[in-house]
Amino acid sequence: MSTATSTATPGTSYPTCYTKLMTLARENDLIGGTMSILGWDQEVLMPEGGLAYRSDQLALLAKIEHEMGTSSEFADALAECEANDDLTSDPQSATAVNLREFRWSLDRRTKLPAELVQEEAKLSSEGMHTWKKARANENFDEFAPVLSKIIDMLRRKAACYGWAEGGEPWDALAEDYEPGCTAAWVESVFTPLRKKLQVLLDDIMGSSHGPSNAFNEIALPVAEQKAFVHKVAAQFGFEFSRGRLDESTHPFCSGSHCNDIRMTTRFHEDNVNDALGSTMHEAGHGLYEQGLLTKYIGTPMGRAVSLGIHESQSRMWENQVGRSESFWKWCHPLLKEHFGAPVASLTFDDVYGGANIVKPDFIRVEADESTYNIHIMIRFELERAILAGNLEVKDIPDAWNSKYRDYLGLEVPNDSKGCLQDIHWSMTSMGYFPTYTLGNLYCAQFFEKAVEAHPDMVEEFASGQFDTLLHWLRTNIHEQGRKYRAADLVEVVTGKPLSSEPLMRHLESKLRPLYKV
Amino acid sequence: MSTATSTATPGTSYPTCYTKLMTLARENDLIGGTMSILGWDQEVLMPEGGLAYRSDQLALLAKIEHEMGTSSEFADALAECEANDDLTSDPQSATAVNLREFRWSLDRRTKLPAELVQEEAKLSSEGMHTWKKARANENFDEFAPVLSKIIDMLRRKAACYGWAEGGEPWDALAEDYEPGCTAAWVESVFTPLRKKLQVLLDDIMGSSHGPSNAFNEIALPVAEQKAFVHKVAAQFGFEFSRGRLDESTHPFCSGSHCNDIRMTTRFHEDNVNDALGSTMHEAGHGLYEQGLLTKYIGTPMGRAVSLGIHESQSRMWENQVGRSESFWKWCHPLLKEHFGAPVASLTFDDVYGGANIVKPDFIRVEADESTYNIHIMIRFELERAILAGNLEVKDIPDAWNSKYRDYLGLEVPNDSKGCLQDIHWSMTSMGYFPTYTLGNLYCAQFFEKAVEAHPDMVEEFASGQFDTLLHWLRTNIHEQGRKYRAADLVEVVTGKPLSSEPLMRHLESKLRPLYKV
Repeated sequence: MSTATSTATPGTSYPTCYTKLMTLARENDLIGGTMSILGWDQEVLMPEGGLAYRSDQLALLAKIEHEMGTSSEFADALAECEANDDLTSDPQSATAVNLREFRWSLDRRTKLPAELVQEEAKLSSEGMHTWKKARANENFDEFAPVLSKIIDMLRRKAACYGWAEGGEPWDALAEDYEPGCTAAWVESVFTPLRKKLQVLLDDIMGSSHGPSNAFNEIALPVAEQKAFVHKVAAQFGFEFSRGRLDESTHPFCSGSHCNDIRMTTRFHEDNVNDALGSTMHEAGHGLYEQGLLTKYIGTPMGRAVSLGIHESQSRMWENQVGRSESFWKWCHPLLKEHFGAPVASLTFDDVYGGANIVKPDFIRVEADESTYNIHIMIRFELERAILAGNLEVKDIPDAWNSKYRDYLGLEVPNDSKGCLQDIHWSMTSMGYFPTYTLGNLYCAQFFEKAVEAHPDMVEEFASGQFDTLLHWLRTNIHEQGRKYRAADLVEVVTGKPLSSEPLMRHLESKLRPLYKV
Repeated sequence: MSTATSTATPGTSYPTCYTKLMTLARENDLIGGTMSILGWDQEVLMPEGGLAYRSDQLALLAKIEHEMGTSSEFADALAECEANDDLTSDPQSATAVNLREFRWSLDRRTKLPAELVQEEAKLSSEGMHTWKKARANENFDEFAPVLSKIIDMLRRKAACYGWAEGGEPWDALAEDYEPGCTAAWVESVFTPLRKKLQVLLDDIMGSSHGPSNAFNEIALPVAEQKAFVHKVAAQFGFEFSRGRLDESTHPFCSGSHCNDIRMTTRFHEDNVNDALGSTMHEAGHGLYEQGLLTKYIGTPMGRAVSLGIHESQSRMWENQVGRSESFWKWCHPLLKEHFGAPVASLTFDDVYGGANIVKPDFIRVEADESTYNIHIMIRFELERAILAGNLEVKDIPDAWNSKYRDYLGLEVPNDSKGCLQDIHWSMTSMGYFPTYTLGNLYCAQFFEKAVEAHPDMVEEFASGQFDTLLHWLRTNIHEQGRKYRAADLVEVVTGKPLSSEPLMRHLESKLRPLYKV
């Protein structure tokens, strides 16, 4: 047996089976990266004539990618590696982590019968199509039949995956987005968060004080907004030699690998804060991806942990940094210098306050930093009940509206502003929503720890210095790849299990002074 | 046997083997289209960090594409189709054309041993790298060793392909770029062209009259140039719902298929004519590609005939249209309206004449419409001699310089302005150069025929109407796909074999008046 060491340093000599496994995995990833670039191209700049053919290209590449990832060659190499103690003895070694993650994804892929995979692809397409029309018509009844089929399919899918003793179907599906996450665990963190948030929101809504909205109502030329958000992303540390920032209807971040990251934002002439917020959010995703290590490209050690951990990075730069007093001390003069006359009269309070307005409303994607989490909890509670068989499709609108009444004090006026607003269920994604709020929770807990390690860090934002935070994130999170699962990473990095307290401390300490409550 | 008809109308019932062949061919093409988009992305907007991984992506896709195109499944389906008279009885039917072309490319692919393909890929990479350095150092001796290896490999490659009785090695290689083209045939058209061109050029160079260069020396903002060339491309009929126009260092036209065509141009602040010429040239390529039929995507009937025919389309819009008096009658006022003050003093003679200046010089890519062809002939004569073993590598610079002296009356000052100026040989392309001048020849002959069919066509350019020409090209050339080989297409469309006379008539009738000779 050749000498395999537990540190995955390039140049180390590995057994043949591991070298082969890595070669196959990297080839598989080359196809995945290709699909990612084609997807980006489609959203950002492809002429409309390209659509039909692009779908065919992506479908063929998905088939090739699936065949490569489930080939007997790959499975055999993996099994041979798993039998080699040198590769697995240290569970935190790069080799052991890669083998653990390959096994996890191979097992999940092989648990689903091909017919079910095809059924899901078909239902997803039909679902999105029907949902778009139903939403336009403000009519849930049009969407209900296909949603019933989707739920039936998802319950069978969950049964194929299976779940742990004491768990439930939701757990099986969430595993695709947030490995290791269970509904019971989510509930244990969400319930205290909701109770504390509701107290804070009641206080804020009862206050006669609050920030001015002036900053969000100023028309600024889109070309100047573009240059501005590029500056901010660059200042955060996003490297444009290893990535791009473009425009798309729905901002996102993708790319081939850590040295070619494509993020997008959007522009509204009358609200630079929207473009800025989107950019900072996507830059957070982009910085995470750029922080993964080149030597691990194409392997789990070179991949982000989960959607929730990814979201913790985007929310960190959008909220913990981008809505902080310290950030606006740097950004306020920059804004004045960049845009000149139209923003000349804006005070510091106008811009810092304008970025922190709290306003309960119907639409999740337009929600502020605090109420956003309530939107997520409502969806989590509903999809959990749906999958457990405790909520029938026909009863979804009533259940939705009643939760918006109870948690946010809002009367939902129609289904399009209610249970038809999100695309997720129509595209067969259940178990996905909580990753957004988990991201907020991870984020706040990470950020407190970074501040503990670098007490001057937040102060530095005021002079445009963000590298202390970036370096801390690089070392503690980005460069770890998939070494730890999300909940474990939180414990390893912060020394404590996930809790709602850091997020509440973050929101309370910022919003109570702004609203004088 | 199911009913196969000779018209390839969608919905026609084909034998299973043909349906299977088409499915395999289209899948193969989906990979080819993917590579094309990745290549475009790389040239136009990819961040530099993406380069290494992109090469790996393209290499893997090339391997997959090669395996698909040479699979026994594909070869068996093709053989079964060839044995089916219903599919082949009418040689101009879509089915027969597709089978003929699939056979041609499969045979060529299988004639080369894998080691030679790998050797060529390696030499191409080494060649380009060495050539770049040698060109920077103005030193042919640095390039000579790898060029010797390239030529040795190319001669073995030619031997693998083989050539017709009475032919020569050059023919075997040219077949990849211009199927059916032989050195003897090229010579038979080039020799009279060169003699007549030299008479014309002598007269022009001896003239004391000539157009003003003022138009080519005006600085105009690049953003305004962009908007301007977009307008011209749209006016020609390029559909932006099925294509794009972007920027790259070297303008080119590519894309996935006829409904997603990507062309690029370049901008110099002090020369809008350069951007305009490049755009009209690439728009000619783009219009050809957009004119191929959607129903034939992924099959030879949906592909351009050859590089030479492709070039005939780009040269047509660049030269026959874009350097015509009639075009400038439309474009001159547009230019004034678009750019305002900086071009206000330019007369019609300034712009029309400025687009038609003749000036023998060293560099092919900067050459005018007439002398360009001399540059090509020199390269053709040299590479033919090299491949036949009649010219040794060490003697190339002297042979090159002596031809520039004889044909253009120029003393080449150094190898970088001489035999090191082009990338083609370094990337193992011999047999490619003549397609540029063949393009000019095809173009002139096609254009005369179009004018014969539509005597008012050129007149219409003056009012910005280009659809008569576009429609003629669509019907006679674009929509034919690969029905005919290049030389046959010329005969079918114009009723005559290729001749140098139309091109000479075009040049003489325009340039003699401008130079008063």
